[in-house]
Amino acid sequence: MSDIKNESVSAPEAVYFIFGATGDLARRKLFPALYSLYREGKLGDRFAIVGVARRPRTSVQFRDDLYASIQEFCRYKPKEEAEWNAFAEHFSYHSLDIGNVEGYRELKAHTEELEAKYDIPGNRLFYLALAPELFGTVSRNLRDGQMLETRGWHRLVIEKPFGYDYPSAERLNEEIRHVFREEQVFRIDHYLGKEMVQNIEVIRFANAFFEPLWNKDHIANVQITLAETVGVEERGAYYNKSGALRDMVQNHMLQMLTMIAMEPPSRLDAEDIRDEKVKVLRSVRKYMSGEDVRNNIIRGQYAQGTHRGKELKGYREEESVDAQSVTETFFSARLLVDNFRWAGVPFYVRTGKRLPVKSTEIVIEFKNVPKNVLFARDQELLPNLLVIRVNPMEGIYIKINAKKPGNDMTIQPVAMEYCQSCQIGINTPEAYERLIFDAVRGDHTYFTRWDELAAAWKLIDPIAAAWREDSGDLQFYPAGSWGPEKVDQLLSDDGFHWWPVNGQDEDNVLWVSNTGK
Amino acid sequence: MSDIKNESVSAPEAVYFIFGATGDLARRKLFPALYSLYREGKLGDRFAIVGVARRPRTSVQFRDDLYASIQEFCRYKPKEEAEWNAFAEHFSYHSLDIGNVEGYRELKAHTEELEAKYDIPGNRLFYLALAPELFGTVSRNLRDGQMLETRGWHRLVIEKPFGYDYPSAERLNEEIRHVFREEQVFRIDHYLGKEMVQNIEVIRFANAFFEPLWNKDHIANVQITLAETVGVEERGAYYNKSGALRDMVQNHMLQMLTMIAMEPPSRLDAEDIRDEKVKVLRSVRKYMSGEDVRNNIIRGQYAQGTHRGKELKGYREEESVDAQSVTETFFSARLLVDNFRWAGVPFYVRTGKRLPVKSTEIVIEFKNVPKNVLFARDQELLPNLLVIRVNPMEGIYIKINAKKPGNDMTIQPVAMEYCQSCQIGINTPEAYERLIFDAVRGDHTYFTRWDELAAAWKLIDPIAAAWREDSGDLQFYPAGSWGPEKVDQLLSDDGFHWWPVNGQDEDNVLWVSNTGK
Repeated sequence: MSDIKNESVSAPEAVYFIFGATGDLARRKLFPALYSLYREGKLGDRFAIVGVARRPRTSVQFRDDLYASIQEFCRYKPKEEAEWNAFAEHFSYHSLDIGNVEGYRELKAHTEELEAKYDIPGNRLFYLALAPELFGTVSRNLRDGQMLETRGWHRLVIEKPFGYDYPSAERLNEEIRHVFREEQVFRIDHYLGKEMVQNIEVIRFANAFFEPLWNKDHIANVQITLAETVGVEERGAYYNKSGALRDMVQNHMLQMLTMIAMEPPSRLDAEDIRDEKVKVLRSVRKYMSGEDVRNNIIRGQYAQGTHRGKELKGYREEESVDAQSVTETFFSARLLVDNFRWAGVPFYVRTGKRLPVKSTEIVIEFKNVPKNVLFARDQELLPNLLVIRVNPMEGIYIKINAKKPGNDMTIQPVAMEYCQSCQIGINTPEAYERLIFDAVRGDHTYFTRWDELAAAWKLIDPIAAAWREDSGDLQFYPAGSWGPEKVDQLLSDDGFHWWPVNGQDEDNVLWVSNTGK
Repeated sequence: MSDIKNESVSAPEAVYFIFGATGDLARRKLFPALYSLYREGKLGDRFAIVGVARRPRTSVQFRDDLYASIQEFCRYKPKEEAEWNAFAEHFSYHSLDIGNVEGYRELKAHTEELEAKYDIPGNRLFYLALAPELFGTVSRNLRDGQMLETRGWHRLVIEKPFGYDYPSAERLNEEIRHVFREEQVFRIDHYLGKEMVQNIEVIRFANAFFEPLWNKDHIANVQITLAETVGVEERGAYYNKSGALRDMVQNHMLQMLTMIAMEPPSRLDAEDIRDEKVKVLRSVRKYMSGEDVRNNIIRGQYAQGTHRGKELKGYREEESVDAQSVTETFFSARLLVDNFRWAGVPFYVRTGKRLPVKSTEIVIEFKNVPKNVLFARDQELLPNLLVIRVNPMEGIYIKINAKKPGNDMTIQPVAMEYCQSCQIGINTPEAYERLIFDAVRGDHTYFTRWDELAAAWKLIDPIAAAWREDSGDLQFYPAGSWGPEKVDQLLSDDGFHWWPVNGQDEDNVLWVSNTGK
């Protein structure tokens, strides 16, 4: 990261290939991200974007799709026609049978024209918004179609799922690695593109205040919640195979955990940071036996329930879901990071669908004042919390104890808050904007390296194996509730409890601020 | 303190004697405090209040004065007549020549009637709102007039100035101590009655978060500001003799410093807390030579100036001030607490009249992230601050560094705040309410013990002595400015600067909060 600071603020000249250009990800996320980058001057003028997909489509049709996408999903809206055309003319569409190398040769000719037109020095970024089964084929054909024979750089951007378990991930990786070197591969975990996830490093390493407290001596536990209100929607076929474990835990949840738990890197360079993140994953205790898994992990599946008065179906009643499915839509675990910094500090994670609120938050619970010491002698003091609000609200708050105004020394918890998303007129980049911009600048910091991915799968696989052997531990929870009841016991066994996340009723904390400044 | 928690919330039955009952303090502070305590049920019904002063006055006249005082100065207003009469009937007036013991015998007879009427078991609280020269006489005559011969308790509440230097303070104390034991004496420093000053202990000792940081390893310096906008007003005669050193520093400033710097006491009992405060005062480095004083202390006097467009006179032009006066109206110092916790951490204090804003604040500046470490390599990071706002705004805020939303890792300082005085409908007790209530309950925590006072004078006397020898270091500052220019140098010599206090332009900190909850 640090090296970026001194670079120009706009991306190097490049051609961007969007494979899967007629798909949902392109329409909802990628096109809007590219337009925002353009509007902020980050793409410059010397770039071209080639939409690639199977279905025939003219470039004019493609630009119409593009316009509709920006109108609907982008945080900037197109201005007058001339401005729009100046942007849209960088876009062209190329119909391709991705299994046929001949098509790539045509693509090559098309690309060279664009490079000549915009004076682009052969930099090519391939964004594969495709099913992972196709990554190998596309990579091979890019090579065989001579798409990678320019003097500029070639980068591959890919999306989860990266396999189904360690062996399948390794096979997938091998296919890619026959063509691309690790440093050419950018694996997106869009949680790493989120403002507050990126802020974790700043909070930790730019405040002398927090660093001395960031260890087992001062932190009692960490609680990471990624709650969704949606059900499986139309993703039943995919989700039934993946479940929460592969869809959320293997990637987003473990990534947030590593950001909280990592040692300070020697430099802010991507490799140094990713080295530290891998170390965390390797230190996470593996649950190898069925008993370990059952004692430390709760899986759940939503049954019929209600949310704000609305009747909700159970998971098994959803379309495209097997009526006997044992797929988990809820996951919660007590994870332990067995290193000197964190020994004995539980990291509680929970994620699920059809929970009561949409909220991603990380709560750092500090150790409490020792019982019987001074004020803790005859009052119940609540521990200090540092809360990082990731989504949808973005901000940080700290909960401390203060004196209740009045004559006796009664103590009350009060909240001190910085609410980033409350800023008036703020218009922060979307995760995909950051990540595309980072990829084109060659910054790997917020992308997952292969060894991270491998370490994550090695944590996940024994859990999945234990579950396959016996599904007796699957708990059902009513849609619209906070998951199976046993989830509270996971913490109460250790003397803790889940702190409310944003959107839940806050406990009796006093929030007062003088925001008028 | 801890023993109070389990006691009843109302004061024990007692007779309160207000000596100086026709004076300003009684009218502005004491009567309103008593009425507020009454309204909150803290006085109960079995109490009597005797106004004592020289001038003849009937009890009816006295109650009229009382009514006017409450109307003007009390945070509660009298309700219907019956309610008011029920309160006012507890008040009577007794004209007394305080030098004549005979009058005390009459007072005794009057008191015994009241005690019989209200069934009060002989508890007597003597509040001397008088010039300190009279404390000895009154004490002696209370004894000789047999006012102290009941089975209940007898307590003496007195106000500053407690002497002019250590020898005079000791003489004054000796006169009192011939009659009252130390534990019967309650010396008021009304800053100790302020909500946020009392909160310092809670913040420090009820938050495991702060305790590990509260020492020389993590704190760079402490800045205590007590700024007034008023000039000397009608207090010229007193002030010309006292100056800021005796009027503010010897008491309020040093008391705030001890609350910040003290070691945790073994218990929350008054004597344990005061033991720790005395230890701090004894560890404060004494400036014995003229050179030490000049190097570490700045004194100033306001000259002509302007404040918000209004022309202001210089101190020497004020009525009742000598045109050659070298009295300091501004004081600032670098103080050092030479113990293991604080060695090398400067405590900067400043107080003055005719400054641009009225504000009392304590800023704890934490050590910064080491230069060149991670984000501090190519960005200037500001240190973390914890700010305790004492007056007029009450609250706490923390300044931390966070990521500026956007694509590069730019860091900005943001403020996380808890604003106590911003609470809607809050009606906190005045300092005098707390302190009278504490005195009648026998809680010494927020009163100054003799050894504290003695230690404070022993710090002050060498400064005054150096100043007497040579007034060449007196600096003039325009009324309405932040004091002599040299005051900035006091900090810049150590590589620090004064942080803005509330009411000054805040530096570029981002304040955003989601107060709507």
